[in-house]
Amino acid sequence: MKAEIITIGDEILIGQIHDTNATWISRQLNDAGIRVRERVTVGDEAGQITGAVDRALGRAEAVIVTGGLGPTKDDITKQTLAAYFGGELALHEPTHAFLEQMLGERGIAFNDLNRGQAYLPTCCTVLPNRNGTAPGMWFERDGRVLVSLPGVPFEMKALVTDEVLPRLREHFRLRSIVHRTAITFGLAESVLATTIAPWEEALPPYLKLAYLPNPQFIRLRLSAYEAEHDRAAREIEGQFAALRELIPAYFLGFEGATVQSAVADLLTARGETLGTAESCTGGAIASSFTAMAGASDYFLGGVVSYSNEAKTGMLGVDPAALAEHGAVSREVAEQMAVGARRALGSTYAIATTGIAGPGGGTPDKPVGTVWMAIATPEGVYARLAHYGQLREQNIQRATAQAINMLRLYLVGGRDVLVNEGLL
Amino acid sequence: MKAEIITIGDEILIGQIHDTNATWISRQLNDAGIRVRERVTVGDEAGQITGAVDRALGRAEAVIVTGGLGPTKDDITKQTLAAYFGGELALHEPTHAFLEQMLGERGIAFNDLNRGQAYLPTCCTVLPNRNGTAPGMWFERDGRVLVSLPGVPFEMKALVTDEVLPRLREHFRLRSIVHRTAITFGLAESVLATTIAPWEEALPPYLKLAYLPNPQFIRLRLSAYEAEHDRAAREIEGQFAALRELIPAYFLGFEGATVQSAVADLLTARGETLGTAESCTGGAIASSFTAMAGASDYFLGGVVSYSNEAKTGMLGVDPAALAEHGAVSREVAEQMAVGARRALGSTYAIATTGIAGPGGGTPDKPVGTVWMAIATPEGVYARLAHYGQLREQNIQRATAQAINMLRLYLVGGRDVLVNEGLL
Repeated sequence: MKAEIITIGDEILIGQIHDTNATWISRQLNDAGIRVRERVTVGDEAGQITGAVDRALGRAEAVIVTGGLGPTKDDITKQTLAAYFGGELALHEPTHAFLEQMLGERGIAFNDLNRGQAYLPTCCTVLPNRNGTAPGMWFERDGRVLVSLPGVPFEMKALVTDEVLPRLREHFRLRSIVHRTAITFGLAESVLATTIAPWEEALPPYLKLAYLPNPQFIRLRLSAYEAEHDRAAREIEGQFAALRELIPAYFLGFEGATVQSAVADLLTARGETLGTAESCTGGAIASSFTAMAGASDYFLGGVVSYSNEAKTGMLGVDPAALAEHGAVSREVAEQMAVGARRALGSTYAIATTGIAGPGGGTPDKPVGTVWMAIATPEGVYARLAHYGQLREQNIQRATAQAINMLRLYLVGGRDVLVNEGLL
Repeated sequence: MKAEIITIGDEILIGQIHDTNATWISRQLNDAGIRVRERVTVGDEAGQITGAVDRALGRAEAVIVTGGLGPTKDDITKQTLAAYFGGELALHEPTHAFLEQMLGERGIAFNDLNRGQAYLPTCCTVLPNRNGTAPGMWFERDGRVLVSLPGVPFEMKALVTDEVLPRLREHFRLRSIVHRTAITFGLAESVLATTIAPWEEALPPYLKLAYLPNPQFIRLRLSAYEAEHDRAAREIEGQFAALRELIPAYFLGFEGATVQSAVADLLTARGETLGTAESCTGGAIASSFTAMAGASDYFLGGVVSYSNEAKTGMLGVDPAALAEHGAVSREVAEQMAVGARRALGSTYAIATTGIAGPGGGTPDKPVGTVWMAIATPEGVYARLAHYGQLREQNIQRATAQAINMLRLYLVGGRDVLVNEGLL
């Protein structure tokens, strides 16, 4: 079955806040097996609200509306929906009693504005809101359902969980949708698509594949609609296992996996440790590991060697190598990695040196030139990368690819680095 | 004039990601004096896209569409819009040449899927995308405009700023609204409002003040509508100068200013330098400076001393201090700051040591306990902070407040730290 979501509020349309309510509701509905067909945001204006409601009810079996239920006169959702469904506002005794008690307990005067919150459409089922003054409202027409909820997130969430979802499940006798998302890294979308085309074409027809590209990685989501839950979940597991066989060097894991979480898992499992020596990434590699809980189990520390003196003094880079090859060079990247591994006493070290931009480029070494290296017990390996003009992107890409270089090594040793054309 | 925004993507409808693009575009349009009337999110399905486009163009003069422009077959926005506006896809030579060059530089094979990105509707103006494979497309019909943009945020943002807004301004001959936003840090919204009430009440009536609170800081936006541009801009400058006098320790600067950009500006102006020694913030302080262009002018480097050995070996922290007071202590924070300043030869150093969580807390030093210190030519100053249970929040807060400690010192010396109750 299909649903639509309508959020009401000028603060969303001027971009002051993200529409986090719509995201949260979307996820709840999907998890419950309800497909969200469309989402709309409109302002606090009767014509817009009525238009959006009318179109949504024409397309979907259920419509969830949030916002515009406050006591002030700029909030008009309740009046507008009462008129749309052909009802009137009347005093709802249980709500009135609840509000009087709640506001009394909080020491808030029970004035006309608050009392107005207890006047509700006669044509709806009232969904009690324990956390605020605006109850939810459940309207039905020709078997279709429209639910109106307050926009305050914690009030809305409690109503969805406690009232709306159980009622939707019962009203529509729902079956579930199964989603699972795998994360790949290191293949451009076009190459990935070509590589896995035979796998994709052999998927059973009830599984839908979606590509969700990020700057950093590409997520592949398999969704089973209208299928028996356990069978679909097993089928998806099996399909992703086959996909992992097909692209072992690029398959990071499932939802939430990143290159750094993959490296963290590998290091923790092996009882090995990591250090960093960063120039152009400026602490972003260290920071991406230490952002994860449990980092102290394997991350010993790092050096951000922005100045040449930091490279020579803290990492033991040879001043002659700096003078001869420049800070952005294979020699310096390798010496930084080796120096960090030695100074920190770690099993591995990752190093980067490059020109993040916008300044500092030369014809020989334009902005976006990055050398990265990993030092291992076997030896040190370095590679050169060329990125673009944007500093933020260059830092992000160098961070992810330097970490990925260690991940590839941990997965398959030097051979994988060679196979990937990185050495 | 009115605009609408259409975002395309199943990942939004299933609640996997927030629709941050729509929020960002809403803000840009509003700042340009364009009112966003409605926002819609639809899936990658031709009928839905065409329906949403048709309704939006019936209501608004400009429609911005993002998403669905990737090279894979689930992305159909381009084909759908070409059909809707009555054009065909044809090879666009400049895009083809650009893609061949860009992918060549990045070492990505130029296959049929990539080549397909250079086939564009004959009925649109192509807006070149320097940062990705999908150009923007500008369609016109009866004076109304529809712009289709890629969904990757940094590609979309560059296109909006460089191509879309200038063209919209010209096409619709927009009057300018003057906006300027000041950033404050360190005062709660209610305290800030009380403190600046006299200033706010004395503003000329054609200037409107808006509070835009964030978790990290509060932005104050002054907007002049229907006023002569240069005069309004001068008036706003003068008003913000007066505001800065009123709250010198809390006024960070203007739109985009952060504690780190304020410190960067102060250090650059003075020709002074900075180093860092981070334990619980794990590289986030170094990373927040090096993320900004020009960091190499003042940032010499840093140490992420996660292990005790890194603290003693690289920063010269006394092992006896570690044994007696523990790693999370005034003594160790001070020695880290002094050690980083000495090792890096910088004018100042910032240090942090704390328990970010979720593990590692004790009854004496629960999760969220952070010591931070700054080393200066005059001496070293340390303070203790208590945050909450969430690792990410603890790292963010410690990062911002440790940097702010140096900022306060640079603005007014040790006296300000004392006045603020930090020492």
